[in-house]
Amino acid sequence: MEFIQGIKQKETMEIRDILAEELTDRTIKINGTVHIIRDMGDVAFVVLRKSEGLVQCVFEKGVTDFDFKKLKEDSAIEVEGTAVKEDRAPNGFEIRIQTLRVLSQPAEIMPISINKWKMNTSLETKLDLRPISLRNPRERAKFKIQEGLVRGFGEFLYKEGFTEVRTPKITAKGAEGGSNIFKLDYFGQKAVLAQSPQFYKQTMVGVFDRVFEAAPVFRAEKHNTTRHLNEYTSLDLEMGFIDGFEDIMAMEAGFLQYAMELLQKDYGKELKMLGVTLPKTDTIPAVRFDEAKKLVSEKYNRKIKNPYDLEPEEEVLISRYFKEEHDADFVFVTHYPSKKRPFYAMDDPADQKFTLSFDLLFKGMEITTGGQRIHDYSQLISKIEDRGMEIEGMEAYLMIFKYGMPPHGGLGIGLERLTMKLLDELNVRETTLFPRDMHRLEP
Amino acid sequence: MEFIQGIKQKETMEIRDILAEELTDRTIKINGTVHIIRDMGDVAFVVLRKSEGLVQCVFEKGVTDFDFKKLKEDSAIEVEGTAVKEDRAPNGFEIRIQTLRVLSQPAEIMPISINKWKMNTSLETKLDLRPISLRNPRERAKFKIQEGLVRGFGEFLYKEGFTEVRTPKITAKGAEGGSNIFKLDYFGQKAVLAQSPQFYKQTMVGVFDRVFEAAPVFRAEKHNTTRHLNEYTSLDLEMGFIDGFEDIMAMEAGFLQYAMELLQKDYGKELKMLGVTLPKTDTIPAVRFDEAKKLVSEKYNRKIKNPYDLEPEEEVLISRYFKEEHDADFVFVTHYPSKKRPFYAMDDPADQKFTLSFDLLFKGMEITTGGQRIHDYSQLISKIEDRGMEIEGMEAYLMIFKYGMPPHGGLGIGLERLTMKLLDELNVRETTLFPRDMHRLEP
Repeated sequence: MEFIQGIKQKETMEIRDILAEELTDRTIKINGTVHIIRDMGDVAFVVLRKSEGLVQCVFEKGVTDFDFKKLKEDSAIEVEGTAVKEDRAPNGFEIRIQTLRVLSQPAEIMPISINKWKMNTSLETKLDLRPISLRNPRERAKFKIQEGLVRGFGEFLYKEGFTEVRTPKITAKGAEGGSNIFKLDYFGQKAVLAQSPQFYKQTMVGVFDRVFEAAPVFRAEKHNTTRHLNEYTSLDLEMGFIDGFEDIMAMEAGFLQYAMELLQKDYGKELKMLGVTLPKTDTIPAVRFDEAKKLVSEKYNRKIKNPYDLEPEEEVLISRYFKEEHDADFVFVTHYPSKKRPFYAMDDPADQKFTLSFDLLFKGMEITTGGQRIHDYSQLISKIEDRGMEIEGMEAYLMIFKYGMPPHGGLGIGLERLTMKLLDELNVRETTLFPRDMHRLEP
Repeated sequence: MEFIQGIKQKETMEIRDILAEELTDRTIKINGTVHIIRDMGDVAFVVLRKSEGLVQCVFEKGVTDFDFKKLKEDSAIEVEGTAVKEDRAPNGFEIRIQTLRVLSQPAEIMPISINKWKMNTSLETKLDLRPISLRNPRERAKFKIQEGLVRGFGEFLYKEGFTEVRTPKITAKGAEGGSNIFKLDYFGQKAVLAQSPQFYKQTMVGVFDRVFEAAPVFRAEKHNTTRHLNEYTSLDLEMGFIDGFEDIMAMEAGFLQYAMELLQKDYGKELKMLGVTLPKTDTIPAVRFDEAKKLVSEKYNRKIKNPYDLEPEEEVLISRYFKEEHDADFVFVTHYPSKKRPFYAMDDPADQKFTLSFDLLFKGMEITTGGQRIHDYSQLISKIEDRGMEIEGMEAYLMIFKYGMPPHGGLGIGLERLTMKLLDELNVRETTLFPRDMHRLEP
C-alpha cells in the first residue's frame, strides 16, 4: 500500500521552467516528440515538439553514446544535456545532448510532413488525417486560440455574476422546432439531440438569474457550405432582470473585449505564429435590420428584394459598409423581423412585425444570435397559439413562466465561426477539431 | 444607429456591492424575485431571492404608495429604499422600501413551497417540477458547488499545462465497445453518441501533450439504480510523457486538493447552507485490487467469491476499511484485472492478468476510472487481435499509434457522482440538474 500526496515536481523541465531561470550551462532533463532531425554530419539538430513550442537539441558525435542513425522522427524521447543561450533557436536556447533515451517509437513514417511550416495539403487531406495533421504547430495553434476564447467566456461571465450550468443534450423536444433535428430511440421513447440549450438556459435564469454554458449543439441541417457544421460548440448565456436587449449586446461586447485582452496576454505566441491582428472591440455599431438593408442598398446600388429577409450577400455588404464607414469589424444588426425569429422572441411593442433581437456580424458572417425573450405567461401562450404550434411537450418549459420569470434575454455564439473569422480562415472546418458535416463522421 | 461600448454600471446593486461599502442609510436600488412575504399588519417583510442569496426588504404602510395586497410571491420586482444594518437579516442588512416596481408577475401560485428551508417533497416530485424546485435555495446551492468543482478542474489543469479540447459527441464507433450505445441515423450513415471522449482525448495527447475536457457522455445502460445516469458530465484528462500510472493518480489528488480549497474559499456560503464537511485530500491511500479484496475479506469475515471482480458491496467495504484504519474518505484501488478493462489499458508487465490502472472510491462509490494506455502500435494491434475485436472503423484511432505516441494515460471523473458523495446525497439524481434515466427524458 502507498499514499498519494498530490503532484510532485518532475525531473524533466518544461520550456517555461527553463525560460524562468538564468541559463548557466546547467545540466537539465527535457522530454518531447522528435519534430524534425537535421543531420549535418558531425553534428545534428534534433528539434523537439512540446506543447509550448519547439526546443532545439544538438547532437554531437562522440559526446553521447546513442546510435544517432537509429533515431526516428516522431519518437518520444527524453534527453539530458546542458541548456545554453542560442538566439537563433526557438525560445532563445538550445540543449547540448549528453544522453538520449527513446520512450516510444512510431511504426511507420507519416504520410504528410507535419514538421513543415505550412502543410501543402488540401483541407480534405488534412481532415482525413486530422489525428496527425493537428500535430503541425500552426494547425494546433488555432485550437490553442480557440481554448483562449472559451476560457475568456467563462472567466468574464463568472466575474459578472454568472453561474455555469450543464444541461441535457438528449431531450424530448427540440427548442427551435423545425425538421433539422437528429432523432434517436431512447429506451423506446422518441428523443432528439438538443439544437440549443434554449429552454434549459431560460429555465436556469429562474434559478440563478445569470447563467452560461459552453457545450455541443446538434443541427441536422442539410447544408454543405463553408460555414455550416452539424455539430458545433455553442457559447450560450442567458440573463435576467435586463432593462432591454441592449444589455445583452453590451454583455457580448464586454466578453469580446475581455477575450481579446486575454488572447493578447496569454496567447501572443500563437497569434504571432498565425499572423493574427486582433479586431477592435471597444465600440461596436448597432444598426436596425431595416436601416442596414437601406444603407447597403443605397451605397452599393442593390435592390431590396425582400424587406423581411437578409441574404448572405447582404450580410457581407453590411459588414463591408461598417468597415468602410466606421472601421468596424463587428456590427450588431437589431430588430429582426418577427417571422424570422422563434416564438419565444419578444416582439417590439412599437412595431410587432419586428423583434427585440439581434445578430452579431463579424467580417461578413453571423456569429451570434440573441435577444430578449417573452417572460409573461399569457403573452407566450398567445404567441404559441397565433403560430399554430402545439403546447404538448412544452409543459416543463411553460412552467417557468406560469410561476414567474423576470424580464430576460440571452445569446448563443458559434465558437468555431468566431475562431474562423478571428483567424481569417475561409472554412469553418479549419477551426473545428473534428468537424461533423453531411459527409464526414470520421475521424 | 448607436454604438455599444461594453457593460455599463447598473443603477441596481448586487449583494456583494452592498456588502462592499459601509451602510450609511443611503438610498439604493435592488431587484430580485419575491421569495416570501411575511405580512405582520402595519409592517411586512418582503424577502427577495437573488443569485447570491436572500435580501430582506421592509414594507411599512404609508411609506410607499404601492398597494401591498397586490404583491405576489415569485414576482420579479425592483425596490428603492435605504439599506440599513440589521443583524437578524440575511447578510446582515435590510432595505426599507420607499418605492416598489413590479417587473413581471406569475400567472399561478406554485404547487410546491420552494421558499421553505427544506422542501418536504419526494425526489420524484422534485424532478417532475425541476424547473421550479431548483429555485429553492438549498436545491440550487448543490449546483453552485458543482460549478465550483468544474471551475476547479479547469483552473487546476490549466495551471498544470493542460489544454482544453472539445471533441465530437456524434461518432462512427463507440470507444468502449459493447451494446450500451445510443444509435442514431446520420444522413443515412450509422452513428452513435460518444460513451466517452477516450479515442479523441488520446488523439489530442499527440497534439498538446496534456488535455482535458468537461462534457456530456452518453450510456444506454439499462440500469435503474441510485448511481447510474444515461447522460452525465465526464471530467476527462489525458496526459503524455508519464513515468507511470501513479502520475495520473497524483494529478487527480492535486485536482481534489485544489477543488476543495476553491470550495472553501469561494463557496463557503453554500457549504454552510448544506452542512458539508469537506473530505481530507492531503494524502490518499492506494491499494492493489487483490490486496484490497484480501483486506476486507479478513477484516469483515467475507468470502472472496471471484478474485477478478469487485462487487458493489466490496467497494463499500474497502471504503469502510480505509475510513476505519486511515480516516480516509478517498481510496485508490489499483491494478484491476485485465479482462475487466478495455483493450487500450496497459497490462502490468509484471503480471499480464492485471493492468496499470485504478479506480478512485469516494465514500464507498467509484467516481473515477483511469490508468495508463498502451502507446506502442504493434502491442495495441496484438491486444485487439487477442480479444477477437475488429480493427475496421478504428483506423483513425490506430493512426495515432502508427505514427508515434508518447507513454500516456488519463482518467474520467463522473461529475454528478463526485458532487453526490461530497454532499452526502443518496441518489445521483439529487445532484443532476435534469437527470436522464431509463424513465426520465423530461424535463
